[in-house]
Amino acid sequence: MELLENIQGHEDLIRLNKEERLRLCQQIRQFLVDRVSRTGGHLASNLGTVELSVALETVYDTKNDRLVLDVGHQSYVHKMLTGRQADFCSLRQFGGMAGFPKPGESITDAFVAGHASSSVSIALGMARARTLLGASYHVVAVIGDGAVTGGMAYEGLNDVAESREPMVIILNDNEMSIDQNVGGVAKHLSRLRTKESYLGMKAHYRSTMSKSAVGRVIYRGTRSVKDRIKRMILPATIFENMGLTYLGPVDGNDVNALVSLLHLAKEMKRPVLIHVLTKKGKGYEPAEQDPSAFHGIGKFDPATGKTVSGGRSFSSSFGDTMLELAASDKRVCAITAAMPGGTGLLSFKQRYPERTFDVGIAEEHAVSMAGGLAKQGMIPVVALYSTFLQRSYDQILQDVAMLGLHVVLAIDRAGMVGEDGETHHGIYDIGFLRHAPGMKILCPASMAEQRDMLRWAVKDCDGPVAIRYPRGGDRGYSASMWAPGPDVAKAGGLACHRTGEDVTLVTYGTMLENTMQAAQLLSRQGIEATVLRLLTVEPLPVEQILSSMAKDKPVVIVEEAAGRCGIREALAWELRHRRPRILVDGVDLGCRFITHGDMQSLYHHYGLDGQSIAAFVQEVLQA
Amino acid sequence: MELLENIQGHEDLIRLNKEERLRLCQQIRQFLVDRVSRTGGHLASNLGTVELSVALETVYDTKNDRLVLDVGHQSYVHKMLTGRQADFCSLRQFGGMAGFPKPGESITDAFVAGHASSSVSIALGMARARTLLGASYHVVAVIGDGAVTGGMAYEGLNDVAESREPMVIILNDNEMSIDQNVGGVAKHLSRLRTKESYLGMKAHYRSTMSKSAVGRVIYRGTRSVKDRIKRMILPATIFENMGLTYLGPVDGNDVNALVSLLHLAKEMKRPVLIHVLTKKGKGYEPAEQDPSAFHGIGKFDPATGKTVSGGRSFSSSFGDTMLELAASDKRVCAITAAMPGGTGLLSFKQRYPERTFDVGIAEEHAVSMAGGLAKQGMIPVVALYSTFLQRSYDQILQDVAMLGLHVVLAIDRAGMVGEDGETHHGIYDIGFLRHAPGMKILCPASMAEQRDMLRWAVKDCDGPVAIRYPRGGDRGYSASMWAPGPDVAKAGGLACHRTGEDVTLVTYGTMLENTMQAAQLLSRQGIEATVLRLLTVEPLPVEQILSSMAKDKPVVIVEEAAGRCGIREALAWELRHRRPRILVDGVDLGCRFITHGDMQSLYHHYGLDGQSIAAFVQEVLQA
Repeated sequence: MELLENIQGHEDLIRLNKEERLRLCQQIRQFLVDRVSRTGGHLASNLGTVELSVALETVYDTKNDRLVLDVGHQSYVHKMLTGRQADFCSLRQFGGMAGFPKPGESITDAFVAGHASSSVSIALGMARARTLLGASYHVVAVIGDGAVTGGMAYEGLNDVAESREPMVIILNDNEMSIDQNVGGVAKHLSRLRTKESYLGMKAHYRSTMSKSAVGRVIYRGTRSVKDRIKRMILPATIFENMGLTYLGPVDGNDVNALVSLLHLAKEMKRPVLIHVLTKKGKGYEPAEQDPSAFHGIGKFDPATGKTVSGGRSFSSSFGDTMLELAASDKRVCAITAAMPGGTGLLSFKQRYPERTFDVGIAEEHAVSMAGGLAKQGMIPVVALYSTFLQRSYDQILQDVAMLGLHVVLAIDRAGMVGEDGETHHGIYDIGFLRHAPGMKILCPASMAEQRDMLRWAVKDCDGPVAIRYPRGGDRGYSASMWAPGPDVAKAGGLACHRTGEDVTLVTYGTMLENTMQAAQLLSRQGIEATVLRLLTVEPLPVEQILSSMAKDKPVVIVEEAAGRCGIREALAWELRHRRPRILVDGVDLGCRFITHGDMQSLYHHYGLDGQSIAAFVQEVLQA
Repeated sequence: MELLENIQGHEDLIRLNKEERLRLCQQIRQFLVDRVSRTGGHLASNLGTVELSVALETVYDTKNDRLVLDVGHQSYVHKMLTGRQADFCSLRQFGGMAGFPKPGESITDAFVAGHASSSVSIALGMARARTLLGASYHVVAVIGDGAVTGGMAYEGLNDVAESREPMVIILNDNEMSIDQNVGGVAKHLSRLRTKESYLGMKAHYRSTMSKSAVGRVIYRGTRSVKDRIKRMILPATIFENMGLTYLGPVDGNDVNALVSLLHLAKEMKRPVLIHVLTKKGKGYEPAEQDPSAFHGIGKFDPATGKTVSGGRSFSSSFGDTMLELAASDKRVCAITAAMPGGTGLLSFKQRYPERTFDVGIAEEHAVSMAGGLAKQGMIPVVALYSTFLQRSYDQILQDVAMLGLHVVLAIDRAGMVGEDGETHHGIYDIGFLRHAPGMKILCPASMAEQRDMLRWAVKDCDGPVAIRYPRGGDRGYSASMWAPGPDVAKAGGLACHRTGEDVTLVTYGTMLENTMQAAQLLSRQGIEATVLRLLTVEPLPVEQILSSMAKDKPVVIVEEAAGRCGIREALAWELRHRRPRILVDGVDLGCRFITHGDMQSLYHHYGLDGQSIAAFVQEVLQA
């Protein structure tokens, strides 16, 4: 590790010779496997982009030049090479280094990233600012072939072509999103990758047309005579059709070739797209064999690649129920946006391939396509992570709610998600779904209840229904105590978990866990709480709350939701005339972005662990 | 009009011969110009697609086959040919026929439409439902070349290629969105349209390769030998690169050729994209000369094409202030998503072309690109209609608010928009913006105040700021009474327009008008109201409200916002401890979709005209 240890940034990298670069890449891989095995994190994508990252940091000075990473989980090598090696011991931990780029962490992190397909847009904005303000830095975007299936990337590329801004877009093509990539564009890229004859023709053309090194690289540029000849001979790529200069495909695991190519691209006075082929998991056998498993991973044994098995989760439980529902009704189908694994749909996909639609990283399309399915009689279940569902806000209103279509939104990773941090917490969905006319929002607290609610949502509801459930599996209390039975959804919108005369705590979903802890802590102080859990937050079961709450005593609403994205204001509004003298208060995550870390630390930090909730209730009672 | 009058649907159209079809198209054009001149509406796009619509309704039976129109303002001819000629006298009027497709209006309207780029996704969902449920209807999507610049269209096309579902996508290419089209893809389409040599080669290839009529049409299909040869000779279109079968370009104003081509395409067992060239405004001289002006138009003189001039509007006033701001600060730039005209930026674009970014119908990209500009020191002002800003919800959170970037969102058409109806009302923006950390939301009530607030937002704010203003111009009261001066924004978040001891009315923006009318009506009943107008709804000026309101008297909040998308619950929440005995109530548009019609009818219908507000206040006081 003697080379890696001495790299603090660009200044150190430019001094390396070719042999040293190769050695550095080896050391980085070792470091990656070693460190990520201890903390968990995104491994496969970072292993695949070691050479690319070294080349980028060698050619560009990211303190000044702007390197915009798409999604950003492939930022580890960048972080390692810009002075943050020591921070890897705290990777993704509370108070430690983030797993995604974060400008607050280093000036070399050009932008925040977490959601896919935005890097081209952001980089173009930066390039335009550079030109307008007369600055001279370089701008590079790195986007994966998965993220290129997102419509935003296409919007960005379309405008880049219009702009003529000098900038470099690296298409990091590993043939995967998180799972296998899909769609017409993926097939197009695949043809570019594999067509021997095409590559052969190109090589022939190249050697005929130009002998110089520069010429070899830019032969696919826009100079008109060459261009016209080339178009006569070679099929244009989709990028050339859009007006970009396309270089590639090139071997993205050849660090020295990449350095040369990037040096040339950097000097070109127009937008250039470099198609780089990398191998996800490269250099670490277990990750090469199963890159999806090593996309985002917990702690593992570096010798074997073995992880502690995750056990059953809300995601896998969702997949099980979907299998059952599809068996009994041929109208039931599933839609995922590049996440059949993450959303628990792998078995479903295997069993019902014709009823599984993996649309790529395309959440907008996913929801509107579901609208079309529903309009013509299918019952589509759209499984998305809460944070990515944000992309579909408009489509939910326009293409689902406006026609009152029976589309089921299965919202995974609702609530805080822990280590992935601020770009990934699913804490807005209630806020942006509640006002869609006709929307129902179901909040199971256990996997058993999730099963019953999903059955109900699919079989018995009409109109749009959202069912939101968290990352992970059952928590202690709800798993042990709550046996809902098939009538749970029909039982009305509420479950009473505890009665007490001093205060009413209202919560929903797995926040039940911490709320019950708070009630027990309060009980030790002689304060007895009624705990009401809402099964649906939309509609709000106001009548049931009124008839179950502790009479005329304060109501405290406990929510794992962003400020203004919960129900507390709405519930207080509903109660204000019916119980005008009742004090209503609430705790939620506040109107701020939420950092990364383990869930317990986050609950504690943001005032949502049992102890903090209890303390808050005591304050309310003393007011 | 003898032909047109007798057309009630598909059954009548299939009986027409070629000559009659030509005559029918003429009659439709006359009918369109005549009727739209009386009611106003979308003219140019409908004139351009007369032949296409006749051909589609002839080849497809839209009672059973599914015709999905993108955006949908080009649905007039479809409506005319499916039994709704008589309804054109009430086009876009309250209680009358909608200007967009509406399944509730006719079984032949396959889906609702209003926002761009969603038709391919919806149609694909329908085609998949058809196949899965074993039905046999046909599915057609019609999408404009403008809408194809939207990323969602690309997501849809990508998945269509993957699906292999038999369906037809008509690319209606008139070289325009509403204004001139932009971006790399537009240039690509333009090359396809105009390249004589390319077309010539194609013709040569066609005549060599195939002599039959069917062969001529499908020669660009995917049969492998032909395909390989073709790829050697012809540059692939972007659609072929994605894996679609591309037919075209064809003359979209040749109705009989279209009928033949559609008959062939209908029988192809795979997804087919037909590139149809049409001329916006076709056949009506004034609209051909200035298609942008005749995109959406008010009543006009059919002989001359002259309209009553609209006068100054919030949009034009926005453009004027932008000119002034750009003159004094070179960091100020403007972003529009295909609406330089509608948002009032035409002069700005002319004066500062290098600081005007028209990104096409790409609201997601617009906002993230603004994030990149802001991060590197520019002050981007993103001018979008409120309803289209819904597309950028995720980008506002992730790429603007998360880094606290100083991006100004200039939200045009906030509030109800009148005749365009349910897909276009801007009544959600406060609801989806209020929870973005750090967001400020300014609500001018007059153009003078808009100017001052925009200056303040650009010069004196940091972080994300939204300024929302309605369609149209100054309304009576605010224009005459309110002279804010340069200190308006600094003056705090509130203006008091009237004091009274019996009740406090709280409103914002141009709802001031109806609220003041209500106060005057109440005064005649002996009820004196304090009228408070919030200059910012985020942050809520709670202290100022507390110190200005009628002591201990009811507070009624009046909002032109969708239910749950206003501030009433939030304001009640803030007041609940400070003034626990105060009754708080409110009127807004409710949690439902809002129909089309003139603003006065809509205000009245939804309980937001002066009289309805006054009546509501009286009820509150009597409770």
